[in-house]
Amino acid sequence: MEFQTLFPVWDALSGAERERISAAAQLRTVPKGTLIHGGGAECTGLLLVKSGQLRAFILSDEGREVTIYRLFERDLCLFSAGCIMNSIQFDISIEAEKDCTYYLISPSVYRALMQENAAVANFTNEVMGTRFSEVMWLVEQVMWKSLDKRLAAFLLDEAAIEGTNVLRLTHDALAAHLGTQREVVTRMLRYFKAEGMVELRRGTVELTEIRKLRALSE
Amino acid sequence: MEFQTLFPVWDALSGAERERISAAAQLRTVPKGTLIHGGGAECTGLLLVKSGQLRAFILSDEGREVTIYRLFERDLCLFSAGCIMNSIQFDISIEAEKDCTYYLISPSVYRALMQENAAVANFTNEVMGTRFSEVMWLVEQVMWKSLDKRLAAFLLDEAAIEGTNVLRLTHDALAAHLGTQREVVTRMLRYFKAEGMVELRRGTVELTEIRKLRALSE
Repeated sequence: MEFQTLFPVWDALSGAERERISAAAQLRTVPKGTLIHGGGAECTGLLLVKSGQLRAFILSDEGREVTIYRLFERDLCLFSAGCIMNSIQFDISIEAEKDCTYYLISPSVYRALMQENAAVANFTNEVMGTRFSEVMWLVEQVMWKSLDKRLAAFLLDEAAIEGTNVLRLTHDALAAHLGTQREVVTRMLRYFKAEGMVELRRGTVELTEIRKLRALSE
Repeated sequence: MEFQTLFPVWDALSGAERERISAAAQLRTVPKGTLIHGGGAECTGLLLVKSGQLRAFILSDEGREVTIYRLFERDLCLFSAGCIMNSIQFDISIEAEKDCTYYLISPSVYRALMQENAAVANFTNEVMGTRFSEVMWLVEQVMWKSLDKRLAAFLLDEAAIEGTNVLRLTHDALAAHLGTQREVVTRMLRYFKAEGMVELRRGTVELTEIRKLRALSE
């Protein structure tokens, strides 16, 4: 897929705007596990995913992580380019959760385009609204739901994303997604196993009782 | 203050746009405690605060609350008008925390303006970025900070907003701000009192050791 078929508001751009944004978008390929944007004040650029999967997460001072959202094919990441808006006052990190190909778009070119073209600005609004909705979901989960429910919901989501009930996930990785400690995850998974909801093998979690997991997650 | 001096991108509007938005903005006055927007799918309209203070919060199924941000003079509330963007998929409630005067702006008129005028769209982006930053702060607090730190930070914020160390706040109200139960707040305040950080009287909390509270909150 070319940039023009991936970029969602291509049709709303003038000829000159198309040239500018195309020239400012570089195709990059990174292997799974690459840290693409490391938090902090740096303004890496916007990421438009061509293939693969990205994970956005935040880090505590003690190095604990929590996943805030995922990005898939055709998704655009704004917060790896916080400098496109003055009001963005938080840091997230972005890593490739699978081998990824993406367009890295210059923040200054995107910002200028957004300032002059209402369609680009409104598209950016919708992207931010989508992320906002995901973060509000996380707030509700963290505020009102106990960790067993959050773990069950995460495993079900993961199975839907991967299209399989056998998930390659370490307890460390699960802890980083949920913002807790490995020991806590291990204890909870043992409880899930005792309840017949999962089978555990080295580096994998198999969901064996979807209905029970779903009931727990709700 | 007139609407035109309050509306932040007034200068970027054409004469016709100014007429449309002015005609679509109604001045309202409500007493402290009024629920202005009750969550759910209704699209109340955008709120532009002329005077007073609004509180945005979310509710759990069990009726527990947590404050997500506050709005003051000149602030604009977008999420009481979720219908202005397709991507906004969460419900918040808005109440007047003090006697309030605000302009209620028609969502359809605002949406149309945002679609045609890049300055309005970009201003909307900045407003959303500000709220996003506040919610990310909340996520970090909830994920990484224990309730004693969050309570200390909340009391210090409140003293800064009110300009006094004697806060009129019930334990119920504190619980609703922090998303916890009244008993938990009462226990924590007793601990703060024993540490000499606060004095408690019926319906008020007096901050007596700001330095100690600040050290705890950090």
